Amino acid sequence: MEARIRMQKLRERIMTADEAAGFIQDGMTLGISGFTRAGDAKAVPMALAERCKRTGEAMHIQLWTGASVAEEVDRVLAEAGIVSRRLPYQSDRLLRDAINRGDIMYTDQHLSLTVEMIRSGELGRLDVAIIEAVAITENGGIIPSTSVGNSPTFAAMADKVIIELNTRQSPLLEGMHDIYLPGPRPHREPLPLKEVNERIGTSYIPVDPDKIVGIVLTDRADHFVNMVSGDEETEMIARHLLDFFETQVKSGQMPPELYPLQSGVGAVSNAVLSGLKNASFKNLTMYSEVLQDAVFELLDSGVLAFASGCAITVTPEHATEVMQRLHEYRDKIILRPQEISNHPELIRRLGIIAMNTALEADIYGNVNSTHVCGTHIMNGIGGSGDFARNSLLSVFVTKSTAKNGQVSSIVPMVSHVDHTEHDVDILVTEQGLADLRGLAPRERSRLVIEQCAHPDYKDALLDYVERAELRGGQTPHVIEEALSWHQRFRETGSMRITEPEYV
Amino acid sequence: MEARIRMQKLRERIMTADEAAGFIQDGMTLGISGFTRAGDAKAVPMALAERCKRTGEAMHIQLWTGASVAEEVDRVLAEAGIVSRRLPYQSDRLLRDAINRGDIMYTDQHLSLTVEMIRSGELGRLDVAIIEAVAITENGGIIPSTSVGNSPTFAAMADKVIIELNTRQSPLLEGMHDIYLPGPRPHREPLPLKEVNERIGTSYIPVDPDKIVGIVLTDRADHFVNMVSGDEETEMIARHLLDFFETQVKSGQMPPELYPLQSGVGAVSNAVLSGLKNASFKNLTMYSEVLQDAVFELLDSGVLAFASGCAITVTPEHATEVMQRLHEYRDKIILRPQEISNHPELIRRLGIIAMNTALEADIYGNVNSTHVCGTHIMNGIGGSGDFARNSLLSVFVTKSTAKNGQVSSIVPMVSHVDHTEHDVDILVTEQGLADLRGLAPRERSRLVIEQCAHPDYKDALLDYVERAELRGGQTPHVIEEALSWHQRFRETGSMRITEPEYV
Repeated sequence: MEARIRMQKLRERIMTADEAAGFIQDGMTLGISGFTRAGDAKAVPMALAERCKRTGEAMHIQLWTGASVAEEVDRVLAEAGIVSRRLPYQSDRLLRDAINRGDIMYTDQHLSLTVEMIRSGELGRLDVAIIEAVAITENGGIIPSTSVGNSPTFAAMADKVIIELNTRQSPLLEGMHDIYLPGPRPHREPLPLKEVNERIGTSYIPVDPDKIVGIVLTDRADHFVNMVSGDEETEMIARHLLDFFETQVKSGQMPPELYPLQSGVGAVSNAVLSGLKNASFKNLTMYSEVLQDAVFELLDSGVLAFASGCAITVTPEHATEVMQRLHEYRDKIILRPQEISNHPELIRRLGIIAMNTALEADIYGNVNSTHVCGTHIMNGIGGSGDFARNSLLSVFVTKSTAKNGQVSSIVPMVSHVDHTEHDVDILVTEQGLADLRGLAPRERSRLVIEQCAHPDYKDALLDYVERAELRGGQTPHVIEEALSWHQRFRETGSMRITEPEYV
Repeated sequence: MEARIRMQKLRERIMTADEAAGFIQDGMTLGISGFTRAGDAKAVPMALAERCKRTGEAMHIQLWTGASVAEEVDRVLAEAGIVSRRLPYQSDRLLRDAINRGDIMYTDQHLSLTVEMIRSGELGRLDVAIIEAVAITENGGIIPSTSVGNSPTFAAMADKVIIELNTRQSPLLEGMHDIYLPGPRPHREPLPLKEVNERIGTSYIPVDPDKIVGIVLTDRADHFVNMVSGDEETEMIARHLLDFFETQVKSGQMPPELYPLQSGVGAVSNAVLSGLKNASFKNLTMYSEVLQDAVFELLDSGVLAFASGCAITVTPEHATEVMQRLHEYRDKIILRPQEISNHPELIRRLGIIAMNTALEADIYGNVNSTHVCGTHIMNGIGGSGDFARNSLLSVFVTKSTAKNGQVSSIVPMVSHVDHTEHDVDILVTEQGLADLRGLAPRERSRLVIEQCAHPDYKDALLDYVERAELRGGQTPHVIEEALSWHQRFRETGSMRITEPEYV
């Protein structure tokens, strides 16, 4: 324990999760570590939920995290009915249902922005931070575990800090983090980071040790989850994108090592990254949020020279090996606060190639990445907005259909806009790739339909465009029909136009 | 002339506008100086249009500028029918009509992005740059006139450069510009600018003098235009916003000098700025695009300590005085390339308060700032996206109704999205101000209706929200009705629900 808690006086603050949960009262705001189910505090949230179930006490808390957290936080706290507000991102099915019912207020935010708003007082006061750590330094500094997320700002701004010291997490994680907190505005220094592999901060989260009110020892693994696995269509999407990159390099538009890559989470992203193994690229770099399975394979094969992220999220089948071989990755990975991994300043400076997933896109290239049929949220906008707006190249990928072909992912007008056409350079489905750079909306529509739409929906989309163009406009629409595809899906379970409508 | 053209060999390249226009051939791309009708090249575009009219020759050019340019460029070239593509922004009525008819392809872009795309070759080759200047230095460097816009990159990337040396523009403009070009990515240095009034570049646009193929002497004033004047409603919008700022300062959320201000162009923006004169603020700063009339009044009264922009656009009644008193403003104004005035890195670092105009907003705070009824473009997104996404505080203003009350600017769903709810912190109409920070969509809707909607439309909006919420969702909608207000306006000339619909 002396190796894990190096400041002697803090060893006296070891307590049970129940005792630590005692610091949490009705009406408080909690800031909990965790990003994409990695490095979340686990024991204290569960103890709090248990307590509320046991005592029946009225409890309403605001819950802030880095991004999505595991069942041990979102599921149990939502189930216990004690979360009144949640931000900035989630991906738990049960919590999502409560949000869509309107039982929990969900403030869906750009992931780089939350800490700016906290520090400038716009979101109110933070009462308690609960942060998972692998060690505490001689000065009380917190060595985070598998994610950094928003924890540095939570530690700085919270009245009280509780640390979950997780002995299951590898001590080799120490030294892999780089903690940097930008100064206050308007007199802020430029972020000094110029290269993906550069260190600009400390290996620990600085915190006033007097604020650490409790240390809870835990031994619980990250709640790794299996991704939806890839299939023929995700492979085809990956192939289209890799062909595009190869063409860009051949034509001299991109350097052979491309630009630093950002990749969203999920099957398509993983397929694109995996596809890089068989492509001709070498010495690539990543400047991304989450480091998934494929990142470690690419590091192993030498295709990827360096990966900067803010969390390591691997599947159960890879977790053990990655964690055991962590010493091999120590010089090839840096974990940063999500504010830094997603910072507009750095995304623009480094010239990131951003690759994110669309739920649906419209013929003009506007993207919906969050709301099913415009109303019900899936997860949230996450970091996609930070990257898409400020990147060198913004790519969105989606399969051309969903729901066994009953839903076209290419529609006349998206039912919810997360990314406007100005922020969508390349759109890829298994059908093909549309390079929309420099095109006007009337050109984008023809190209998106030709390249990306599923053949079953092409005629109907073309028919829409032709009738819309008769009405004129920079972005032609038949306004009373623009959302009719979603309406039809709602009423009939399919976006397909069936015969009777023509009668 | 020696004072204006200081490099001797360049004096030999003085020619007529007709001769200079001779460098322009069918199929070329032109990059023309100008931002918000300030500092545009004037003579050569007119000579080109004349030539085409005279000869009847087939001519199709791509036209790139900083932002909107005056009739001498957009009007005459569109009238001559020789523009095939236009970017990144325009505001000419005749050109707009051609765009909405689909006769001209208009690539509407974030104003900071165009030059990045040009430099990385994504928009194709630039044949000829035509740049208005007040002088040419000993080394051939170009001293721009009343705007910088995209001219530094045009000069760097064009095969040939034509200079319009405008002796009507004040020589006192020399020294007011600060030209900085970021290096290539991914190994770019941080932008060194840390304060609004800091200089980081040169007073001239560097250019290879051998590329300067012609210098045309002109004596034509900027085509200053009268703004739509303010009225009682713009005054009320300004009052709400100023009250909000005062409250923020009192509560300690903002410093007494606020944060650097960005302000869009137009009557409301001018009213807000003018309103500052009578408020209690001192030592404010601006980090904006266009410096309008009110900026000079604020500098005179000492309310504003410094203004950074990329163009000076004043009305005819103020132009003469401002230009005659330019020496008084030389230490208080810097004109920068629009890439720098709108750079995400600097907007985030400086903590800008962004104030832009909405055409319409929806109950959830999504903003349409470009497309009338979702299809016909007014001007373009301009710099609003650069600022709204990356600012410390993003404010959008609009009157609550348009078209004599027949159109509600607050609608169930905007017919086109330029700014998502994530990028809209504060919404203001003459009715009131909605502070949307940290709120979930279901909270935003009630507040927007209560604070911002016109009383004539409140009941209908509330009725919509209540019925939408019965269907559930993070962002409730009655999808088949979401755009019905626009449809009704299209069919009846009014968004008002008339009695017969209830029968």
